Amino acid sequence: MTSSMHREIREQPEVLDRIMEEEWKTVHSAARALRERGFRLAVLVARGTSDNAAYYAKYLFEVLLGVPTVLASPSTFTLYGAQFDLQDTLVIGVSQSGESKDVLESIRRSRELGAVTLSITNDGNSPLAEAVEHHFLLRAGEEKSVAATKTYTAELLLLYLLVIALRGATEPGEPAVRLPDQVHRVLEANWVDTARYRYAEYMVVVSRGYNLATAKEAALKLMETSYVVAEAFSGADLRHGPVAMIGRDFPVLAIVPPGRARSDMESLFEGLAQRGAELLIIGESENLASSAAASFLVPDSCREELSPILYALPAQMLAHDLAVLKGLNPDSPRGLSKVTETW
Amino acid sequence: MTSSMHREIREQPEVLDRIMEEEWKTVHSAARALRERGFRLAVLVARGTSDNAAYYAKYLFEVLLGVPTVLASPSTFTLYGAQFDLQDTLVIGVSQSGESKDVLESIRRSRELGAVTLSITNDGNSPLAEAVEHHFLLRAGEEKSVAATKTYTAELLLLYLLVIALRGATEPGEPAVRLPDQVHRVLEANWVDTARYRYAEYMVVVSRGYNLATAKEAALKLMETSYVVAEAFSGADLRHGPVAMIGRDFPVLAIVPPGRARSDMESLFEGLAQRGAELLIIGESENLASSAAASFLVPDSCREELSPILYALPAQMLAHDLAVLKGLNPDSPRGLSKVTETW
Repeated sequence: MTSSMHREIREQPEVLDRIMEEEWKTVHSAARALRERGFRLAVLVARGTSDNAAYYAKYLFEVLLGVPTVLASPSTFTLYGAQFDLQDTLVIGVSQSGESKDVLESIRRSRELGAVTLSITNDGNSPLAEAVEHHFLLRAGEEKSVAATKTYTAELLLLYLLVIALRGATEPGEPAVRLPDQVHRVLEANWVDTARYRYAEYMVVVSRGYNLATAKEAALKLMETSYVVAEAFSGADLRHGPVAMIGRDFPVLAIVPPGRARSDMESLFEGLAQRGAELLIIGESENLASSAAASFLVPDSCREELSPILYALPAQMLAHDLAVLKGLNPDSPRGLSKVTETW
Repeated sequence: MTSSMHREIREQPEVLDRIMEEEWKTVHSAARALRERGFRLAVLVARGTSDNAAYYAKYLFEVLLGVPTVLASPSTFTLYGAQFDLQDTLVIGVSQSGESKDVLESIRRSRELGAVTLSITNDGNSPLAEAVEHHFLLRAGEEKSVAATKTYTAELLLLYLLVIALRGATEPGEPAVRLPDQVHRVLEANWVDTARYRYAEYMVVVSRGYNLATAKEAALKLMETSYVVAEAFSGADLRHGPVAMIGRDFPVLAIVPPGRARSDMESLFEGLAQRGAELLIIGESENLASSAAASFLVPDSCREELSPILYALPAQMLAHDLAVLKGLNPDSPRGLSKVTETW
């Protein structure tokens, strides 16, 4: 029987298409209102998979808009009752269900403290959708699997569209419009031999820049569906200590996107190769892949800013296939439910 | 032969004393200048152990000062050349050596972009000490071990002193003054039986709030000195997915400080116990410890804001002792050097 997770991974091209067709107008008009009001600081509030989307948004806001961006620790609101001056601040809550209590509380408090608020959810009637001035709908359809896949890439696309609209775009633009087809081709490509990782108990996942989000999301998917102790690092952070634990045969999943982060990743590989690490590379260069024990070549090239959407897919597939291979049900990891209540 | 790391762990009481005696004036006068100038946003730039100190600073600045705080991704400056408006922004670079190139570049660019800059280093002649308006010296003496210990707690104390000075304190205050003695008593206490973890290949480290920094630093020390694949989570983030990987006998190091984060941690333990996880608790409650396979009781109580200094010590000792037990040299993890150059 096909899992919901597998089906939902396959639905991503149509979800991305739908967002551009049906949600762009909302994004565009929210962006116009936000530009008129003006903001000097952005704050993202999210948990789990949505928090990985927030990491992506941090790079978008900082690099493309020059707006310093805080990844909120909801506990500063919920446990410690922090009082901020949030004038000139855009606070964005991201949550698939729109029901995360700590995210909701952080958004409500932010609005009281003067922030303009926006939320991105897959349920237009959820508390988080109703607590804000601006709401974007993920339009992903019901997501049954506990492990989020289509809502993750939908979140990334909406955050990307918001940022280009804030830069003045009047339409999603050709690089985004091409994306659903590119996603489709990634999903049709031959995936690596997952069996190789059947007994991998731990794994390091590494990337840099925009795709640090991808590394974090890959690690989260591996942890929650296939119970691999997977830890994500930026290439720079890995060098500052953790790399010491990587010795012979240590499995490293490297996400090597096109763009500015690439040459840094390549120099990292030399060090990892000297340590005898075993590399699994998700990238677009055959050259690079030849140095790895296994690789997945992303068939199309795209803008670095959009690459986290394409590069998340092989990671989702790996986590899913490995769960199935281990006899686990990828749709319902032990002891998790679709809405996680934290405070 | 005693390792440098072991010796440096023991030096922490005197380093903390020295900071309060010799560096308070500098901190106090910098704080006065910063208050006069005013700032609405704080940005921390750091890598490795110093980045864990930055996590601590984020909670201090947000909870005690109500100032939104960004943990910088240096790559937005170094790889992507982001252009920020940093008026009304305090940017703090933290680096033991004061030589991290990406931290230095981020600070230099921040100053050009209008920020007021401060750095904390263990070398007053380092490039990072000279690139800023305000510099605090760690006064830790030479740190020979690659794994930073005394410079970490020194960074925490200086960040704490800065924040209380920004709140108007005219002296370090009794809770801080008591700290060196409390640190001494932790170092004299009986540590747990490290042998139990001789063959632990991975470990989850969990805490919440101010001590998320402690969890991250514990994980980093375990990775770099004893090659345990250790991953740190806040209790809330652990529940949003990663907890699925925790099954029977999975080792979990829990940092359970006094204060607001405590009851949330206790409820987390119930879930972990049901999963059959094996808990190692660092805390002050005998009650709590009785549910664990092993525990370390911190002898003294202190303010939650200062607890990351006390609670880091058992984690340092665990990482050190485990490295020695495994026949590793805790002073020189394979392939690391004291100054890590990243960009």
